[in-house]
Amino acid sequence: MTKRYALGIDFGTESGRALLVDVETGEEIATHVHAYANGVLDETLPGGEALGPDWALQDPNDWLETLRVTVPAVMKAAGASADEIIGIGVDFTSCTVLPVDANGEPLCNDPALRKRPHAWPKLWKHHAAQPEADKITQAIRDAGDPILERYGGKMSSEWIFPKIWQVLDEDESTFDAAARFIEGGDWIVEKLCGQEARSACMAGYKGMWGGDEGFPSKDLLARLHPRLGDLVGTKLSNDIRPLGGKAGELTEEAAALMGLKPGVAVGVAVIDAHAAVPGASVTQSGRMVMVMGTSTCHMLLSEKKINVPGICGYVKDGILPGFYGYEAGQPAVGDIFAWYVEHCAPRSVHEEAASRGVSPHQLLEERAAALKPGQSGLIALDWWNGNRSVLVDAELSGLILGMTLTTRPEEIYRALIEATAFGTRRIIEAFEESGVPIAEIYACGGLPQRNRMMMRIYADVTGRPFYVAASQQASGLGAAILGAVAAGKAGGGYDSPTEAAQKMARLLDETYQPSAEAHKTYSALYQEYLALHDYFGQGENNVMKRLRAMKHA
Amino acid sequence: MTKRYALGIDFGTESGRALLVDVETGEEIATHVHAYANGVLDETLPGGEALGPDWALQDPNDWLETLRVTVPAVMKAAGASADEIIGIGVDFTSCTVLPVDANGEPLCNDPALRKRPHAWPKLWKHHAAQPEADKITQAIRDAGDPILERYGGKMSSEWIFPKIWQVLDEDESTFDAAARFIEGGDWIVEKLCGQEARSACMAGYKGMWGGDEGFPSKDLLARLHPRLGDLVGTKLSNDIRPLGGKAGELTEEAAALMGLKPGVAVGVAVIDAHAAVPGASVTQSGRMVMVMGTSTCHMLLSEKKINVPGICGYVKDGILPGFYGYEAGQPAVGDIFAWYVEHCAPRSVHEEAASRGVSPHQLLEERAAALKPGQSGLIALDWWNGNRSVLVDAELSGLILGMTLTTRPEEIYRALIEATAFGTRRIIEAFEESGVPIAEIYACGGLPQRNRMMMRIYADVTGRPFYVAASQQASGLGAAILGAVAAGKAGGGYDSPTEAAQKMARLLDETYQPSAEAHKTYSALYQEYLALHDYFGQGENNVMKRLRAMKHA
Repeated sequence: MTKRYALGIDFGTESGRALLVDVETGEEIATHVHAYANGVLDETLPGGEALGPDWALQDPNDWLETLRVTVPAVMKAAGASADEIIGIGVDFTSCTVLPVDANGEPLCNDPALRKRPHAWPKLWKHHAAQPEADKITQAIRDAGDPILERYGGKMSSEWIFPKIWQVLDEDESTFDAAARFIEGGDWIVEKLCGQEARSACMAGYKGMWGGDEGFPSKDLLARLHPRLGDLVGTKLSNDIRPLGGKAGELTEEAAALMGLKPGVAVGVAVIDAHAAVPGASVTQSGRMVMVMGTSTCHMLLSEKKINVPGICGYVKDGILPGFYGYEAGQPAVGDIFAWYVEHCAPRSVHEEAASRGVSPHQLLEERAAALKPGQSGLIALDWWNGNRSVLVDAELSGLILGMTLTTRPEEIYRALIEATAFGTRRIIEAFEESGVPIAEIYACGGLPQRNRMMMRIYADVTGRPFYVAASQQASGLGAAILGAVAAGKAGGGYDSPTEAAQKMARLLDETYQPSAEAHKTYSALYQEYLALHDYFGQGENNVMKRLRAMKHA
Repeated sequence: MTKRYALGIDFGTESGRALLVDVETGEEIATHVHAYANGVLDETLPGGEALGPDWALQDPNDWLETLRVTVPAVMKAAGASADEIIGIGVDFTSCTVLPVDANGEPLCNDPALRKRPHAWPKLWKHHAAQPEADKITQAIRDAGDPILERYGGKMSSEWIFPKIWQVLDEDESTFDAAARFIEGGDWIVEKLCGQEARSACMAGYKGMWGGDEGFPSKDLLARLHPRLGDLVGTKLSNDIRPLGGKAGELTEEAAALMGLKPGVAVGVAVIDAHAAVPGASVTQSGRMVMVMGTSTCHMLLSEKKINVPGICGYVKDGILPGFYGYEAGQPAVGDIFAWYVEHCAPRSVHEEAASRGVSPHQLLEERAAALKPGQSGLIALDWWNGNRSVLVDAELSGLILGMTLTTRPEEIYRALIEATAFGTRRIIEAFEESGVPIAEIYACGGLPQRNRMMMRIYADVTGRPFYVAASQQASGLGAAILGAVAAGKAGGGYDSPTEAAQKMARLLDETYQPSAEAHKTYSALYQEYLALHDYFGQGENNVMKRLRAMKHA
């Protein structure tokens, strides 16, 4: 019998990856990574034109190159033939948005527009639209519209409306030249199957679209700017497709690019983090999935529709059909540990790590694992990149407290890990205070599999068992699962994401059960975290904002 | 004409030093350092007996060895003859206290007592008498005695009564065996001239003695413990000698030990930090002397007698005759920077420093000097070793706030320096709020001459000009000055410390004038420092104490 494979294509911040998965068993047969030639454009355009502070762009040709390079590579590595591929799923960072012409060609590929920064795709972490985000928050509040309640009460500069409005504000001729604005993931799907099929996941979490509510009204958008009133339906598609749906079939041109056959089912695009939910085998409510890497994204399925204060957003059918999908996040997690190792870990740590052939992270983890909760005498606030959930304030910054002359590197390292765990506990409590219970946690992403101490700390801090996805590429696996669902049972795949995830995703055998004793100590420390969290984050002492203002003065 | 030289002998924490100074010009002809063989005994006695936490002892034989080694070395280096030495001054850490037998022999030299920790000299930084210090503070408050008002309101565990009481509490037979308890500096003077001549400086700052008030009453001491009621006058000398006085003349035995002639004038001992006041040429009121090294000691002369809340102490004639001498301190300054370089400065700093042949401190200073006030976005509390003045709380700990993923090592380094400068500004304000004005600051010790950026930051933060002592050994020079005063004009020296300091001490030409612009920015940052200082230090959030308790649980 012929093998049936699904391809998950995972577009990240610095690279793209193809994953070839056995549809029947979920076995990951082959994977291949392509580092983007132009990476993140945050200082200049490829032609050398300077970008302002907080800009972050990408080059769409890097995405096409990912298709061209990685798919043939995994086909070859797996020894797979083109007719064994039954479906393709795409996950992508979001909101990564680009202006295209009437033919779907990125404006930045037009020689006349190539030197204009606004003609390029704005990456999810482009933060230069903060003024527009603030104006939108204010305008929505002034209008008395409840739409932001679904998003924790604030518009983020990362989302699509601020990013599009920034183009209009700063470069109206590029705005004029744009036939459409489109999410990167939706654009790739359009490249694959020849038609736009806008992702409900991306539109929901990043575009203020709701399964029950639709888009913001024309009146509301016109209050922002007269030219934005009719944006939805003209330059912004309102043809929203549910996750798990089929966007179309592979075109001749796309098939040729990747060495596949035309006609393969292509799924609706999904945000990379959200793809990890089925990728981590979660298809039930009450289970939180944490994608833990440079940052952490928390996702949760629930039958209930509740506004959780300070939580990034919920979208009906946004993660899996039949559920409200909730999303929260911590904008720096692995990034904090990497910052620590690069800018704070002393020479002695690097030297001992090198002499033992381990990484500085491994050495620090090993030493920190010997410490008991509370033993360092330290506590930290994990706001090195602001706070995305609960406080929703990008102007907050990090804090470490309790240092003495005997404080050692591994103590600081552990305190930083603990701080990120306290941040997660605060998010869990925000959900539970609003009536969305969380019984178990499923971890995936780059960190959980290689940092067992961190998992133990998270279990002890939250008092909840932690399960770890078996896949090292839960997002890519989730995309492949959605590819198999796009094919449907008739096409050799599955008819629902739930069924597909049950067959194709699994967990590691090792789970992390909280220790009652450690949880008790951490609960006392968490009270200290909360007091500092509220003192510095809720306005009692806005020193972090004032220092930030002085820094940028 | 024969040369006239004075010897200053400076007993520090890790080493002792002799300094040979020209009495006429103040020129430092020769110096020699002797590292103590037994250093600081903080884990075990030399015989291996374990010490408890917070213990710190010294070996008196290391002090005698300092005399034996360093004096002949400087005599030889200077090409001086024994009859050119007109006076000897001794400065010593304090309160460093030892029990001696009736002959003045340290009890730890008695083979029967050698294994008993309490038979050894307790170094200034022995902190294991904290319970006794707390009991004394409480007892004095209960008695309604105003004596602690001169000392900022609290008994320190570093001072003589808690240290003696700890012997009685924990090892009564050693207490019984002690004919006397004596300061290390007074013991050296006794070794030099054959009789105890107790230093007013040490008795005043560390022994609750006052020039106007005398010692605490028998009744008060008896309230602590019945056996302490008659301590003063029996096991503790009450023959107090003013600074600048002559303790006696060099004995045959001491002269032989050092290769000198008997009969040389020996001055009353002085605390090392306090010796730096004449050593930095300061003989007037309104000028604060800062001895900046691992910690910082602030000294100030004033005609006024005022209780300054939270200031370690004032003693009439305790620094120079005719003035009330005030003392305050920051218990970790250079120690924080050293902690940072050892435990936080990343590999890149060490590598670049090594490749350029500079120290990591120099490299960080160079990079940090390029930053403007406020540019780092960071603020710190300088309590790595608690707070000695204003808050007087050893249980406080350090804090750094404002970190982001772009925070760099030199920014943290500069923030730590700034924090210590803010701490000094808080001390200056405590003095001025109490009516003791400070117009100018004179810096000496190990740090000021080799860290110009730090001096600029201190001038900018405090808004006051900083002058730097020319001598790298201001304490040793101060001791030599007091040696010359002990000799008197008739003996080839001077009749007053003021006159001697004017002749023998000088400043560097370069002074640090505050920049109005930088001072304005730093004043805004100082307000942030103050808010954190009060929030964490005045009881609003005692998280530092609770973390400390958890750490030691």
